[in-house]
Amino acid sequence: MTSESKIVYSQNLCSDVRPLLDGLTPEQIFIITDTGSSKYCLNALLSALPELKGARVIMLKEGDENKNLDAVISIWRFLVENGATRSSLVINLGGGMVTDLGGFAASTFKRGVRFINIPTTLLSMIDAATGGKTGFNFKGLKNEIGVINKASEVIIYPAYLQTLTKEELLSGYAEMIKHALLSSENDLMELLSSAPSHIEPEMWLEIIRKSLQVKENIVAVDPMENGIRKALNLGHTVGHAFESFSHQNAMLEGGKPLSHGYAVAFGLTVELFLSYKHNGLDNRLLSMVNSYIREHYGTYSIGCDDYESLYALMLHDKKNSAIGAVNFTLLSKPGSPEINRTLTKEQIFEALDYFRDAL
Amino acid sequence: MTSESKIVYSQNLCSDVRPLLDGLTPEQIFIITDTGSSKYCLNALLSALPELKGARVIMLKEGDENKNLDAVISIWRFLVENGATRSSLVINLGGGMVTDLGGFAASTFKRGVRFINIPTTLLSMIDAATGGKTGFNFKGLKNEIGVINKASEVIIYPAYLQTLTKEELLSGYAEMIKHALLSSENDLMELLSSAPSHIEPEMWLEIIRKSLQVKENIVAVDPMENGIRKALNLGHTVGHAFESFSHQNAMLEGGKPLSHGYAVAFGLTVELFLSYKHNGLDNRLLSMVNSYIREHYGTYSIGCDDYESLYALMLHDKKNSAIGAVNFTLLSKPGSPEINRTLTKEQIFEALDYFRDAL
Repeated sequence: MTSESKIVYSQNLCSDVRPLLDGLTPEQIFIITDTGSSKYCLNALLSALPELKGARVIMLKEGDENKNLDAVISIWRFLVENGATRSSLVINLGGGMVTDLGGFAASTFKRGVRFINIPTTLLSMIDAATGGKTGFNFKGLKNEIGVINKASEVIIYPAYLQTLTKEELLSGYAEMIKHALLSSENDLMELLSSAPSHIEPEMWLEIIRKSLQVKENIVAVDPMENGIRKALNLGHTVGHAFESFSHQNAMLEGGKPLSHGYAVAFGLTVELFLSYKHNGLDNRLLSMVNSYIREHYGTYSIGCDDYESLYALMLHDKKNSAIGAVNFTLLSKPGSPEINRTLTKEQIFEALDYFRDAL
Repeated sequence: MTSESKIVYSQNLCSDVRPLLDGLTPEQIFIITDTGSSKYCLNALLSALPELKGARVIMLKEGDENKNLDAVISIWRFLVENGATRSSLVINLGGGMVTDLGGFAASTFKRGVRFINIPTTLLSMIDAATGGKTGFNFKGLKNEIGVINKASEVIIYPAYLQTLTKEELLSGYAEMIKHALLSSENDLMELLSSAPSHIEPEMWLEIIRKSLQVKENIVAVDPMENGIRKALNLGHTVGHAFESFSHQNAMLEGGKPLSHGYAVAFGLTVELFLSYKHNGLDNRLLSMVNSYIREHYGTYSIGCDDYESLYALMLHDKKNSAIGAVNFTLLSKPGSPEINRTLTKEQIFEALDYFRDAL
């Protein structure tokens, strides 16, 4: 199930997607999208490809709180009721929630039908739409259930970025910073010298291609995440804990939870501190990234009495191989990650102290 | 996710399973079994391997009507609540229901943990435990949701066959007849010259090995069932329809539904008739298999007014590639299957007439 995706960098949906539809009748095409992506992006897709107007559209409710089993069941049910066959095509059009849920539903319906991802956010272009990770949240844990199964094609269409807010661009940019940290100091400097809302539209295709290449190179070596692919989790052990924690709080107390990209940005700060303290990362790099994140992403307020909850969430991280230990990816320098680094609760709490003080 | 399973033909669980547990602490092992398999087979496993006494046992309710999403959710929940990690080991001990459900739950928990299948019935030794098909029934459709992901190891331990009734042995034997039909007339003659309840205990290991080799050879060429693997569905297009239909009737009117193997046996009769009528199969072979099945498996009573319901079920078969057409695997002679043969409703109804008359 892990053959390579073809990544199509497209300036023109019509000419790039049409060849993929050849030989399929419209009734056999299902478009999965969400209420957030449907207005502009679905219309743009249907205008570019009028033959898709016969496709059945599955509309999901947007928001990570809806990235659950109920949403997957609603897709499966729709596919059954509309006579989908094993040679139907599923097009996932949306952010990471849509490609994760739609990818999982397609990968498991009749044991797998072909699907194409058309990410509509910078975050999903950089992160969720490629690499084959699919899944949903379960029992309060992020992406606890899923499979690794790559889309047959991923269409990167930067025109969709025009629909995004500054915050949504920043959310995707955090994953690009992570890729640059896994690549080289030069790549990192390039990203930190600008802000995503200042990047010229015609520049995006190349910037995204460069960033995705870092991920693709790593995933090609280790598609099933038995080893080096864990490097891509830099910033995510703490980032996922922040994200889950903010969702729990939003449910209890209302307010807006952290977006994935912001959680990763804050997670990077903590994990670069751990890299500096325990893995020889230059303090200068820590400060530089930390300053950039503080300037552009602001703060996430946690208190000392939140540490235990955050730690408990980290213990549930999928990358942990043993009970009672939290696994990190640490850097020694840009481009040199070390995976499977276990740190103690005290070391983690010290880094959370740094995060509280620094932001 | 489709690397090969290691099939271990074992006369001694202790010496054959112990090496697979090396390096795992008992808390990280989960045994999934069902109320039917637990009495004898679980005890035998725990006696052979006392270190497994620390493993957590997940007990499923037996019966195909419990092969559903609720059962999968109960496994996922148990794994979360008992701190399973990505390097936990799942042992599926049971018939096809257990290996299908347990295999799916393990393949999707944290995007995949390692699992071993220890089939306890002849049917699951021959069919479900190898080849990587996992899944559950959904909306009344057999195995509608699932993934293809092979167990890391499959332990074939024929001593478990001693626990089976004559009917359970016959159920597995139907899949062996199918394998022989896909192999050679000699293999077929060998099987039809005996009855499974008359086979000497020490003979089983070799008979099973020979039968599984037919399946393994086909699956190795086409693990994802894009082509020739569909040959293994010989007898199953009609067989699955019989099986689903009998379950629907059992729910409505009570009584015992058809077991999978019996449904396949009856499905083989219908599909060999179709092979004779439309694909040049020798009438002599049809009669021979038909007589054997009539003698050992008895009859399944259907009426003309059931044909439309059975046809509707066949239309939902996962192997169909287009709406409104039913795909079959037909034989021209033993060892020569042809896949993707589409037949009309009238041709199928004629074969159902033959089935009603012949049995």
